[in-house]
Parts: sequence; structure tokens; C-alpha cells
Amino acid sequence: MKYVFNKTMNKICLAEYYEIYIFYLQRSPRVEGMDRYSFPEPEELAVLLDLELRDTGEPQGKLLKRVKDVAKYSIKTSHPRFFNQLFAGVDYHSMAGRFLTEALNTNLYTYEIAPVFVLVEAEVLRGMHRLVGWTEGDGIFCPGGSISNMYAMNLARYQLFPEIKSRGLWGLPRLTIFTSAESHYSVKKGAALLGIGTDHVILVKVDDGGRMIPEDLEEKIKLAKSEGSVPFLVSCTSGTTVKGAFDPLDHIANLCEKYMLWMHVDAAWGGSVLFSSKHRHLMKGVDRANSVAWNPHKMLVAGLQCSALLLRDTTNLLKRCHSASATYLFQQDKFYDVNLDTGDKSVQCSRKVDCLKLWLMWKAVGSAGLEARVDKAFIHPEFVNVCFWYIPPSLRGKEENADYQEQLSKVAPLIKERMMKEGTMMVGYQPQENRVNFFRVVAFSPLISQKDMDFFLNEIERLGKNM
Amino acid sequence: MKYVFNKTMNKICLAEYYEIYIFYLQRSPRVEGMDRYSFPEPEELAVLLDLELRDTGEPQGKLLKRVKDVAKYSIKTSHPRFFNQLFAGVDYHSMAGRFLTEALNTNLYTYEIAPVFVLVEAEVLRGMHRLVGWTEGDGIFCPGGSISNMYAMNLARYQLFPEIKSRGLWGLPRLTIFTSAESHYSVKKGAALLGIGTDHVILVKVDDGGRMIPEDLEEKIKLAKSEGSVPFLVSCTSGTTVKGAFDPLDHIANLCEKYMLWMHVDAAWGGSVLFSSKHRHLMKGVDRANSVAWNPHKMLVAGLQCSALLLRDTTNLLKRCHSASATYLFQQDKFYDVNLDTGDKSVQCSRKVDCLKLWLMWKAVGSAGLEARVDKAFIHPEFVNVCFWYIPPSLRGKEENADYQEQLSKVAPLIKERMMKEGTMMVGYQPQENRVNFFRVVAFSPLISQKDMDFFLNEIERLGKNM
Repeated sequence: MKYVFNKTMNKICLAEYYEIYIFYLQRSPRVEGMDRYSFPEPEELAVLLDLELRDTGEPQGKLLKRVKDVAKYSIKTSHPRFFNQLFAGVDYHSMAGRFLTEALNTNLYTYEIAPVFVLVEAEVLRGMHRLVGWTEGDGIFCPGGSISNMYAMNLARYQLFPEIKSRGLWGLPRLTIFTSAESHYSVKKGAALLGIGTDHVILVKVDDGGRMIPEDLEEKIKLAKSEGSVPFLVSCTSGTTVKGAFDPLDHIANLCEKYMLWMHVDAAWGGSVLFSSKHRHLMKGVDRANSVAWNPHKMLVAGLQCSALLLRDTTNLLKRCHSASATYLFQQDKFYDVNLDTGDKSVQCSRKVDCLKLWLMWKAVGSAGLEARVDKAFIHPEFVNVCFWYIPPSLRGKEENADYQEQLSKVAPLIKERMMKEGTMMVGYQPQENRVNFFRVVAFSPLISQKDMDFFLNEIERLGKNM
Repeated sequence: MKYVFNKTMNKICLAEYYEIYIFYLQRSPRVEGMDRYSFPEPEELAVLLDLELRDTGEPQGKLLKRVKDVAKYSIKTSHPRFFNQLFAGVDYHSMAGRFLTEALNTNLYTYEIAPVFVLVEAEVLRGMHRLVGWTEGDGIFCPGGSISNMYAMNLARYQLFPEIKSRGLWGLPRLTIFTSAESHYSVKKGAALLGIGTDHVILVKVDDGGRMIPEDLEEKIKLAKSEGSVPFLVSCTSGTTVKGAFDPLDHIANLCEKYMLWMHVDAAWGGSVLFSSKHRHLMKGVDRANSVAWNPHKMLVAGLQCSALLLRDTTNLLKRCHSASATYLFQQDKFYDVNLDTGDKSVQCSRKVDCLKLWLMWKAVGSAGLEARVDKAFIHPEFVNVCFWYIPPSLRGKEENADYQEQLSKVAPLIKERMMKEGTMMVGYQPQENRVNFFRVVAFSPLISQKDMDFFLNEIERLGKNM
């Protein structure tokens, strides 16, 4: 096949693509339900999409059908009835920033190819620093909160044992990390990847609200030390994944200071409360942390991926820990200030521009606009997560039955299956500790109305009432 | 400030944003030079962009100016005279896929929220597997080649010592990695992050063409073993960053089999030769590797980020090594086949959809179209990278002068400074081993014409002739 790159043809094609997905996007908030067909079986969907990659290309008409089908069979995560995840909704300013980022397609490693974005990233990080309560510091955008958390681990151990970078963990004592039993699983994933091992992540007890208990933390630090381990990091959580709990940072900071431990705050979900003068007390003490991970792609609706690691450090620790000083990329004899080449602070080489969309949205609505969104999303008594069971008529008043818990555990998965197959809305469920499957609803998208919340409750009732 | 989310207003705004960047994008290939103002000083650019994030939002008119300015002062990496990096150019199909990805804003961890993308990712990985020469296998898209390389390291050591996941590196013998002296710096960054340490990355000598010398590799493996280390991984390179060299995979595979080492191929840059029946011999033996990292965001112009890690493994190693089995996300009592929830193969939690753009482009031009692009980019005698010095008139015939090398080393940085300040084109330079600063030009964008290449050479001459 002879392939001719036809600019005109492709630009027309691009404009058509654009019309199609805007059509789908605009449509979704208006219709009842989530505007998709009943949840397709994978085999069926594979056929519908005609997935196969072939030797010859396809004409425009077929490609447009591909784009339509991708939009048609995808879950409309921007729909106000998508309550399934800690990201949802859409902000059109941010989306414009995302399209612009894609159109400009550059890489955040050197100032010479990303002058605007190097400055924008620094400005956004400055804005986030201020909200944390720092007048200076360092930071970087990472591809997701898990990797931001891993960075914190790597920095903490490097600060304690700089030789680790060249010599590895051999010859060093066993290092231990402390985090709450309800913290995000990325702490364990990070410990495994970094060669520390999941056994050396010590889980601290939580209170009924899911908050780390400082007294238990101190006991476990002492125990680890008595066993010859070297505690080096406490990973606190501001906004746990399931319950939305905020660990008591000030108390934990006292212990971190006492035992000279790196204090990391995984605020991937909860960090946005820092915008709210009414609710930021939930993170009181965050300014005493060494590092904070915060994902604006979650509650701030900045779009995937957008995760910042913020550091109190002013000694260039990030760069010292991660740099490899590649001469082909980070030439020292450039004509501009090479400190603007921030790429060597990263463990990545190519690094996507994740800051522009946040900057543009922040410019558009201001800190006050973001504060209003956060305040709107809050639910009494604390934060956004609401966890609940739906008790179907057949189980009401049967709490004493021997199989009550077992029967209850089947309710949420079945309601979820029904809502997926009908395509009316989406909400997540999970078991936790001794609690069988319960729903967790998170409602923070700026698109959500009272009507959507009413629909949500009625729909759970409708789908579950005959169980 | 009262913030009202005004859907209509924002949709209009989005359409306007779109028009603006398409205007800038379309304009860039038509004009002489790279269509930007002289390279701005950072302080000046910060003022021009009005970076500051404020309490109150901005009206639409100001926001549109922001978008225009971002486009105006950004480097036009899609311009045919951008030769600075291993990514460049633009493919409009891929760009449509990128916009669609942004519009649908979902996360590649569960089938329930990404049914289309789970299948698309699997299909693209299958297509890449076939090109490697495998009929089955595993794989995942990662945020960049460095992280793909780190995955390979983590998998290799986990296969050898599965207990590492829970117990960490303590109690294990020193592990060593082998890679060529001209391999990418991410091998060292990965070794540091994974707790192995950069000292345990053994650099193998290269021949004049920059290819790993298998005899030296074998000697170094033997030496490491004799010193009590445990060699576990050889990271070969297909397409080195500077010279574009291809390590002799078949020879290295023999050694990996002999010493039972994991064979990883970092084909981030060179992997695209697998599309070319004429040139794929450069990677002969790749089917014997355990893992291959390949970045379609480079030569295939898929757009940042797009990096695949391909595995020969069929034992679910990827998931066993990385899984944390979070019950809130990877519920086992779902109504569909939970093997479709691929998220636990990743060390990330949120994972951006990086496969759609590649799938759409591949559908549009076919394997044959991609082959033609690769073939077009090739330069005799091998691959795409061309490294050269420009010798200015004042240095010609002065090779015997004591300060010749020192003077020559200043030529490329100065020409680079001049081209940046005039904004006519961009090309990278670097020193390597005993060679002082030289240019490396890579020309693979489908947009490049003969005229652009003529311009390139004349422009180097014009900028350097008075030195």
C-alpha cells in the first residue's frame, strides 16, 4: 500500500473527529441515564469495535465510525450520575488546557523545549505550596498519586542514607514505613518497587472514623526500633479512599519530630480542602510535613493525569536524589540558566505536561471558585465520601439471622450489576474490615444537581427493592 | 466571589479555544522558521504570560488571551524544522485519538469504567507482540520508557527472588545489571529507585558504532559472579539515544541463556524498525528477549505519552509482581470476568489511557503505512540518527592546534543559541566520550520535506560561518 500523508485530508478529518466527540460529550449531561447501551460483553464489544489492526489503512468514513463507536461504548465519566470513582465530572477550562497540551505535544524536561510549561509548573506548585502553608519549597508533577507517594519514600530514605543511590540497600539496616490500616495501597506497592518490601510497611490502627491513632503509631515505632529496624517515614492520609478520613497531622507531626521521621501526607484525594477556609482545619499541621502528594485530577476535576508532589525541602534534594546528569539532554553549557531544566528532578525522562490544564482552570475560576466547589461538595459531618448499605425489604429487621451478613454482602454487587446493565448510573462498593460490601458514593462534580442526587437514591431503591 | 458554573458559556469558550490552537497548529508548517518570537528570557516570559494565580477568576476574553499566549510562546514541536528530540511532528489521526481520550477522561484500571480501552490496549499490545515475534505474552502501557525499563528490572528480580516483594532486598545477595556504556540513563535511575544502586549497573563496552560488545559483556558477567554478585538482567538497547545504535540481540541472547539472565530490550527509540521488513534485521533476536520497552510516542509520532512494556511471560508475572489486590477497586465478586481489570498489573493506581491514539493511527494508516514512514526516515548506513560537527571556516585545517578540540566544543552551543534566539529551527547537541560537542539530527516526522533538510544544512552554515 502506498501511504501518502495528506495534510488537507487529515485536517478535515480532525475537525470531524472533534465535532463527533463534542457531540457525545455535550449530549451526556442532558439525557436520562448515562447515555450508553447496555453494558456489552467483552467478546461482543470486540466485534462491535472491529479492534483488529491490519496491514492496510482505512478510509475516513470507517475511521469516523471508529471514533463514534469508541465514544458510544465508553463510560461517560463526566456524566453527573457517574459516582464510581474519585474522579468524575468535567471542567471545560481544564479540558481546553488538555487539548492545548495535546496540540503542543512537548516534554517537561528542558526549558528550551517547554519554556511556557516550565514556568507554569513552577507557578502552580507555588500556588499549592502557599495553600500548604509554605513560602518556599520544591515539587514536581508525577503520573499519578502512587508515583508521587513513591517519590516521597525514595526522598526520605535518600535523605537519611544518601549512599543508597549508588550502593543500594545492601549494608543498610531494615527500613520501616508507617501508615494507617486504611491508607492507599500504593504505599505497599511503593515499598515493593523500592526494594523495601511490603512486610516493612507497618499498618497503624485507625479509630472508628478511619483516622490513624497516634498512640498506636508511637507504640509501633518503638517496637520497630526495639527489633533493630530503622523507622524512616510516616505516610499519613488526608482523605482516605473509602471513608474519606483525615489523619490527625499535628499529632503525627509531633511524633515525626520526636523520632526524626520523614512526614509524608498522601492528600491525593483530600488535598483540595486546602482551598476551603471552612474545612482546611482537617489538614491542620500539614505545613509541618516534609512532603505532600495531591491529585488535582480528583476533586478539582482537572482531568487525568494531574498529580503533584510538594516538598518543604529547599536544598535541591529532589534533584540530588534523582539526577543522572545525562549530557545529551542536560547540557551545562547552554546559553540560559540551566536550573530551568527541571527534568533531572524526575525518575522519568519523557514527562507529560500535566500542569497547564490546572493553571488554566485556576486562572478561570480563581482560588475562590475552587473553594466554592469544595465547599459545595462537603457532606456533614466530614468530607465527601458517604458509605452506606442498602437494606432490601427482605432483609429489614433480620439483623439477627445467622446468614444476614452473607446475604447483605450480595446486595451491593447485584445492584451494581443491574445499574451497569441498564446503564443508568455508576457507584462503587467494597467490603472493609468486618463490614461486608457497602456502597461508597462521592459527589463533587460541578455538574451534579439536586435532581441527580434524588435520582441516585431512587435508583438504588428501584434496583434493590425486589431483593 | 460567587462562582457559577455556566455550561453554555464554557462550551462556547471551549470551541473558541479549539479554534485558536488549531489556527496555531496549522500555521506552523507553512511559515518560514518556527513561527515564534525570539526566545524569551524567563523573567520576561513570566510577565508576558501573567502567570500569577489569583483569588478571583478571569473573564473569557482574558482566558482566550492566555491560551493564545501559551501557544504563541511555546516551541512548535510539530514543526518540520524541530529536530531537537526523539519526538517531533504530528499525526492528525493520533491527535484525534488524544482529544478523544481527553474528552472521555477515564482510567485504565477496571473494565467497568474503561471497557473500550481495556480491549484496545490488549489489541495494540497483541499487534506489538506479533511484530516482536511472539504469539502470546503480556504487557502494559507505562508513563514513559524510563518507567517501562524500571518495570523490567522489577519483574526480573521478582522472578528470581519472589520473596523480594514482601521482604525487600535485605538478606539477598548483591544484584547486578548489565547495560552498554551508551544505553539510556534510565537504567541507572531505575537501579537507584529500586534500591539496587547505580554502582551495581555494570557498563559494557561498545564498538565504534555504539553497539554493546558481547565478549565484554561475558567477561563482566564472569567478573561479577566471581566477586559474589548475582547478575540478573541485561538491558540491551535497540536504538541508542545519541548514535541510534542497535545492540547485537542474538549474541546477547546466547549469553542471557547461558547465564540464565533476564534479557530486556530498551527499544524505546528503535522499536519502530519492527514495522519494516527491510530494516527489522537490526533487532534480530528480539523474540528471545524476556521484555521489550517501546515508545510509539517517538518515531511513530503517537504523541506524548505512549510507551509500552511488552513481555514474553505467560504466567501472569506482571500481576503477581505488582498486585496489591485492593478490595475497593478490584472486587472479586463482580458480574464480569475480573481478569479484564488489568490495573493491578501496574505500580500505578490511576493510569492514563495511552493506547487509543496509537490504535486509531494504526487503523488509519495500517502497518504498511507505518512501515513506509519508518523506511522513509532511514539514513544510510543505519537508522535515523546523524551525528556531525560543523567546522566553521576559522577552524578548518587547524586540527593540529592545541586548542582545536576546545574551540570546536564551543561551536555547537553557540550555533544552538543563535538558532534559538532567531527561532528558525531546533537541533540538539552533546559531547560523548572523547568527542566534544556535536550535533545530533533526527529526521522522521512525516511532515519533513527535502526543502526542510536543505534549509537545515544551509541554516547551520549561515549561523556558524562567521565563527
